[in-house]
Amino acid sequence: MERFRDQIAAELDRVVEFWLKHSHDKEYGGFFTCLGREGQVYDELKYVWLQGRQVWMYCRLYRTVERFRRPEILEAAVAGGEFLRSHAWAPPLGGSQKCAFCLTRDGRAVKVQRTIFSECFYVLAMDELARVTGEQRHQVEAERVMDLIVHWARVDPSGLGRPEMPGDIPVNSMAIPMMLLCLVEQLTEGRASLAEKYSELGRWCVQRTLQHIQRDGAAILEHVSEEGEELPGCQGRHQNPGHALEAGWFLLQHAVRQGDEELKKTAVEKFMLLPFQTGWDQQHGGLLYFQDVDGCCPTQLEWSMKLWWPHCEALIAFLMAYCQTRDPALLDRFSQVYDYTFSHFPDAEQGEWFGYLTQQGSLALDLKGGPFKGCFHVPRCLYMCEQLLDGLLGKSQ
Amino acid sequence: MERFRDQIAAELDRVVEFWLKHSHDKEYGGFFTCLGREGQVYDELKYVWLQGRQVWMYCRLYRTVERFRRPEILEAAVAGGEFLRSHAWAPPLGGSQKCAFCLTRDGRAVKVQRTIFSECFYVLAMDELARVTGEQRHQVEAERVMDLIVHWARVDPSGLGRPEMPGDIPVNSMAIPMMLLCLVEQLTEGRASLAEKYSELGRWCVQRTLQHIQRDGAAILEHVSEEGEELPGCQGRHQNPGHALEAGWFLLQHAVRQGDEELKKTAVEKFMLLPFQTGWDQQHGGLLYFQDVDGCCPTQLEWSMKLWWPHCEALIAFLMAYCQTRDPALLDRFSQVYDYTFSHFPDAEQGEWFGYLTQQGSLALDLKGGPFKGCFHVPRCLYMCEQLLDGLLGKSQ
Repeated sequence: MERFRDQIAAELDRVVEFWLKHSHDKEYGGFFTCLGREGQVYDELKYVWLQGRQVWMYCRLYRTVERFRRPEILEAAVAGGEFLRSHAWAPPLGGSQKCAFCLTRDGRAVKVQRTIFSECFYVLAMDELARVTGEQRHQVEAERVMDLIVHWARVDPSGLGRPEMPGDIPVNSMAIPMMLLCLVEQLTEGRASLAEKYSELGRWCVQRTLQHIQRDGAAILEHVSEEGEELPGCQGRHQNPGHALEAGWFLLQHAVRQGDEELKKTAVEKFMLLPFQTGWDQQHGGLLYFQDVDGCCPTQLEWSMKLWWPHCEALIAFLMAYCQTRDPALLDRFSQVYDYTFSHFPDAEQGEWFGYLTQQGSLALDLKGGPFKGCFHVPRCLYMCEQLLDGLLGKSQ
Repeated sequence: MERFRDQIAAELDRVVEFWLKHSHDKEYGGFFTCLGREGQVYDELKYVWLQGRQVWMYCRLYRTVERFRRPEILEAAVAGGEFLRSHAWAPPLGGSQKCAFCLTRDGRAVKVQRTIFSECFYVLAMDELARVTGEQRHQVEAERVMDLIVHWARVDPSGLGRPEMPGDIPVNSMAIPMMLLCLVEQLTEGRASLAEKYSELGRWCVQRTLQHIQRDGAAILEHVSEEGEELPGCQGRHQNPGHALEAGWFLLQHAVRQGDEELKKTAVEKFMLLPFQTGWDQQHGGLLYFQDVDGCCPTQLEWSMKLWWPHCEALIAFLMAYCQTRDPALLDRFSQVYDYTFSHFPDAEQGEWFGYLTQQGSLALDLKGGPFKGCFHVPRCLYMCEQLLDGLLGKSQ
């Protein structure tokens, strides 16, 4: 346990140093995330998901971990927050307001996605920024955008700009309720009035996430109908083990805060042990990226690759589950994922982790950051595991 | 040469049998393209690109190859054409007409892409259908939609539905002019009045394709500015060797018909030999899917995979180039690609070709068809190579 704790803490230091050293755009604010093996910037585009995530991560570390209460971390987070507030919102289309997906270095919108996720990571950033700086305007902004997201997700999605098509039936994709549950946990921490405001939303998120338990409890499916029924075709059979594991610790964290024993059990058994059992590659080790529940070949070219983030989520999930249950089988799972992860992903020479391996575990892409990999899953995993291990070792900060 | 010819003709027979046996939807018309290793339908969605391509392929084989003048081929093509005419057009959005990208089995639009390609393959289908059936209405439809596409590509892209963003500068993507050149070749074959109508468009396509020769002739880049300048970042450095080779034979075919010796030379040297030189994997064999001209790691997870279609395009390109020049070095290249292709992609047991291999050449996806793989690149390659070899052997049909 001590060994885990020390290695994880040291790795978190190295990872944070990598982003501090290579990612800051001191001219325009915000962060470069397209960083090569040695940290060199190979593209200056700024992805809003990753801007929001890095602001959140910096603020969270600054706020809760003594050794990261460093001015340069706060300054970069504040500059990133201001960059987002000034530039994330794309020119309105047909009266509807959307965050861009991607911006030029100086903040001009390049592309808008017709989903809620840019806005979600914007809310994460604003809320944590408000907690660190004490500035009320950031919290007001977080709540304003949260309400917009909830409107799209629950009342009327037309503001997202996706035209309705007769063959395109509404789907409950697990990403939506689990992301909203993550936001509920973020916004309500330590705030009774917001906990009250969002309590019904929290229940909705849990219920919509649990709908993904399918086939008499034998599988987690990524997309189900609005009524919680299995969908036809590849979409219906699609599985994403890392996503299920991430949903697992979101549910477990929520269940702990709510004191919901039944939900704790479901989170561990259905969203952790089950996806791990089917998603772990028995031959080569590591978690497969995508699966088809009937064993058909997924159509995504990358289905069998080993990505860093499902392993990050699995580490958090099993360690949190062990903390809650003290079931040694869960610590074994953590240890199994830990061994694969730490022997495959970290770059001992240049810092940070590689993100993309072949099924066999060799390096497929040598970049450290890109359009979908930034300062988030790795440091969040290391941070949360450090906190959980401190709790187990009786040395809470 | 005889050996190539006989193996290719036999393989074409096997491939066509696969699609005849497994892909026809006798209830609704059109084609299933999500077919597993044994030909089983694993998803019933119908992708408009692939519907159009299969109609084109069937009609072309029926029209030009004696042994494929079979009623079942014509009937399936006609049913596919009617399915497209009845269902490909999505409900109009803001007054603008667009083909869907994807339909349900019974023809309800699921998704619309904000690009020109569904419409392009629709035109290919309608034109070839008109030639086979003699029905004027199909040719009228082909020209109507062609004019719409040209309007989007050259006059006003707003009908595509992609909002203009301040950071999203207009780009000359090679896919657009090369696709339009392919359509010009299709529409004008044997029709003097259309050759006249589209001659200026043909010149525009050639000029816009040649703009992708960059770095003093040392590289083909997939995206350049409207002015033909290199773009910054990953987008600017992106290379797609298979695409360049496909553009190469489009250009060469056009140059031959126009009697343009200079263009013939450019097509072979810049769009075939150059991308082959950089795109061929010296260690494992086969063509890499994507490259970065400066050697950065591409951000696409599949960049190092070996896909079937670049190899199909390379076979056509080098054989056509050899026919035109009789340069034995080009036949060597053909032979090199042939050996890799025929030892890696065809499935001797169940027919058709696998589409997706790892960099090392092992099977990554065992499907025979999917959202982007249908009855097109493989049979078109085999058909064109058979025709070219017949020409070389002096036995034109």
